[in-house]
Amino acid sequence: MRTEVGAGARASRGPLRIALLGCGVVGSQVARLLAEQAVDLAARAGGPLEIAGIAVRRPELPRASGVDSSLFTTDPAELVTRPDVDIVVELIGGVEPARSLLLAALDAGTSVVTANKALLASDGAALHRAASANGADLYYEAAVAGAIPLLRALRESLAGDVVRRVLGIVNGTTNFILDQMDSLGSDFDAALGTAQRLGYAEADPAADVQGTDGAAKAAILAGLAFHTEVTSGDVFTEGISAITADDIASARALGFVIKLLAICERCDGGVSVRVHPAMIPRVHPLAAVHEAYNAVFVEATAAGRLMFYGAGAGGQPTASAVLGDVVAVARNRRAGLRGPEPARYAELPIVPMAEALTRYYISLDVADQPGVLAPVAEVFARRGVSIKAVRQEGRGEDASLIIVTHTARESALAGTVADLAAMPVVRAVGSVLRVEGEEGE
Amino acid sequence: MRTEVGAGARASRGPLRIALLGCGVVGSQVARLLAEQAVDLAARAGGPLEIAGIAVRRPELPRASGVDSSLFTTDPAELVTRPDVDIVVELIGGVEPARSLLLAALDAGTSVVTANKALLASDGAALHRAASANGADLYYEAAVAGAIPLLRALRESLAGDVVRRVLGIVNGTTNFILDQMDSLGSDFDAALGTAQRLGYAEADPAADVQGTDGAAKAAILAGLAFHTEVTSGDVFTEGISAITADDIASARALGFVIKLLAICERCDGGVSVRVHPAMIPRVHPLAAVHEAYNAVFVEATAAGRLMFYGAGAGGQPTASAVLGDVVAVARNRRAGLRGPEPARYAELPIVPMAEALTRYYISLDVADQPGVLAPVAEVFARRGVSIKAVRQEGRGEDASLIIVTHTARESALAGTVADLAAMPVVRAVGSVLRVEGEEGE
Repeated sequence: MRTEVGAGARASRGPLRIALLGCGVVGSQVARLLAEQAVDLAARAGGPLEIAGIAVRRPELPRASGVDSSLFTTDPAELVTRPDVDIVVELIGGVEPARSLLLAALDAGTSVVTANKALLASDGAALHRAASANGADLYYEAAVAGAIPLLRALRESLAGDVVRRVLGIVNGTTNFILDQMDSLGSDFDAALGTAQRLGYAEADPAADVQGTDGAAKAAILAGLAFHTEVTSGDVFTEGISAITADDIASARALGFVIKLLAICERCDGGVSVRVHPAMIPRVHPLAAVHEAYNAVFVEATAAGRLMFYGAGAGGQPTASAVLGDVVAVARNRRAGLRGPEPARYAELPIVPMAEALTRYYISLDVADQPGVLAPVAEVFARRGVSIKAVRQEGRGEDASLIIVTHTARESALAGTVADLAAMPVVRAVGSVLRVEGEEGE
Repeated sequence: MRTEVGAGARASRGPLRIALLGCGVVGSQVARLLAEQAVDLAARAGGPLEIAGIAVRRPELPRASGVDSSLFTTDPAELVTRPDVDIVVELIGGVEPARSLLLAALDAGTSVVTANKALLASDGAALHRAASANGADLYYEAAVAGAIPLLRALRESLAGDVVRRVLGIVNGTTNFILDQMDSLGSDFDAALGTAQRLGYAEADPAADVQGTDGAAKAAILAGLAFHTEVTSGDVFTEGISAITADDIASARALGFVIKLLAICERCDGGVSVRVHPAMIPRVHPLAAVHEAYNAVFVEATAAGRLMFYGAGAGGQPTASAVLGDVVAVARNRRAGLRGPEPARYAELPIVPMAEALTRYYISLDVADQPGVLAPVAEVFARRGVSIKAVRQEGRGEDASLIIVTHTARESALAGTVADLAAMPVVRAVGSVLRVEGEEGE
């Protein structure tokens, strides 16, 4: 039987069989839900779903209830190429061995559901090519923003539209930290400590607070939004560890809130993809995203402004996204075909950060004297940066200038800040923050 | 050729041909975008899309630029059954003749994309049956919440999950009116006038302000969320015309905002589907939905709380949703198969409004005397309604009691209000508003 028929033909006769790689927080939820909701899932998938095997590193560890340990194997390479496996669900994370395992599965024509953002952000193109060449599906809704059905929207619903911009809070840990700083006035270290104590941040929070997790997600989003190959390395990345309680207070005074944003934009000459903290107006829908929630704003030519909001992490929400993908892939398998492939025909160039159009908020400690504004304004003019608003605050030692610019090239803005720092009338450059999410900018 | 091959086989050879019914605000945008974005759409749909004909009632009327009037026909019945038509896009609205035209198309095996909420809310089950019996697709993303890809999420992404509740602002006109009342303190008539002047409300605003538009959308949402047949007639519906500036002010004082909500809930004994104004906490994500925007909150067992936000109406957003569906249907056609069908296997009973679990906010004008609270509390206790919070305000003539209840059966709450109105110490029942969207209720 194994050699007689292909996966599609076999699939339509009996249950579809799933190889589960990894049985941690998400994997054990997936295993549990597959068992608990078997009847529902079968009705939705067009036939029963069965676990063929679960690859784990240490089978002796205790697992969540509802996980059948008789399915455990320590040989994932054998599991993914078993001829009776129809769908590989990968939840081990990291680039290797996930990459080799998934390429082996796809090469054998087996469809893949994965939540592995790091792998997709580094090798997404190779995985898509392997899926395409072998008639297999590659779904990864859970890789960005947990259970929020955002990737499917970009891949399918907005397929008839032109996406101009994606602006999102895609890292729950940093949103929790910034939300704590904003609501309690605490500084970064205290907020990080709270996040760690409550389980929102890991003991080593580097990937979250330095923005690398966000960068991987931005690469995946930009690839889908603009039909272009984007890797983590293409993403300008700046974390939140330099954000001070003063920055948060200044933003608040101006009616803004600071969020770590993933930004993917169509611009002259290509696509700009970046992750950095930015001030957004308090009336912007993203400003109302609290705690560890994720939300992604999409601007498309015809659809206008859309926002998707939900839990961005956690075992259950991630497992829900994985199961949604499993059902979709199962339906495709039963029909003997592949789901819609993300189109990859635009291949726009990635614009370097220096060329990106952004806006700056700058606070300067200045000498309290009449006429300090004129030379400062002159510096902006020389760099071709237009000032939108200026406010002078305090007197004497405490005098400061708050400047918000119009949109300008990042290199011109960075150059302006360097010039300002060198001015005798400027005692110190306080905060420098990019501004996003304002109308007409 | 026409008689030799079926639609699927023909489709894979040449362009897919679209019959467009209606060429008004949305239809003309669809026609324009099909022409303007032909290259993009062909890449995404797997082959070119062509307009076979456009059914209009009065071909002599002027149309938006980009619409080819040589495609006009005044015979929609002939157009939808033309053998060279692969997809019927229906944008005429209303139950008839749309119903007969779409059933004729589906019976001929032609797939349908429609934005017709009234038809879907009355005859959705019959249309789905016809689609299923004839191997045709039936897509209608644009029928609820414009370009927000909400139905696809319910149909596909959440297919592996159990939806517990859908709570949404699905009517932009009423949201605009309530938002004006909340932000400006104006009364209903003034806010309606502004909405009409700005084009957010029609000259006859009945369908919007009485909640019938929302009821149709609630029926569609409940059907998809709970895999159950729900029609408009099943939906308890209450509009916003009785909401006063005082109600808005009272809500504001308590930290609430009043929104017209479509609510679809799993409950003991079945499904509760209703549309009525309700107070929601100002910190709830739906409270931040301003102007004519739509947003829908979905609570699912595994996915947790999700929200979808965007423009709920307008030619371009609606056209975007229609084109997303057209691309999906075109991909299915080229593959010779149907897209995932909304599962309809649960068929839960619709719980009558009297049985629904809700919460009430009640304000009472009372005689200013010691001991008024005891007999009032006694009325609640007799009806088995638990009081969550009470506040006494004013003295003498202006004395009032503000009461917020815990969750109780609607019939018990309504009975309590009737009992209160009959009490000698109660001079008048002021506002009675349901409360939604609080944690743990």
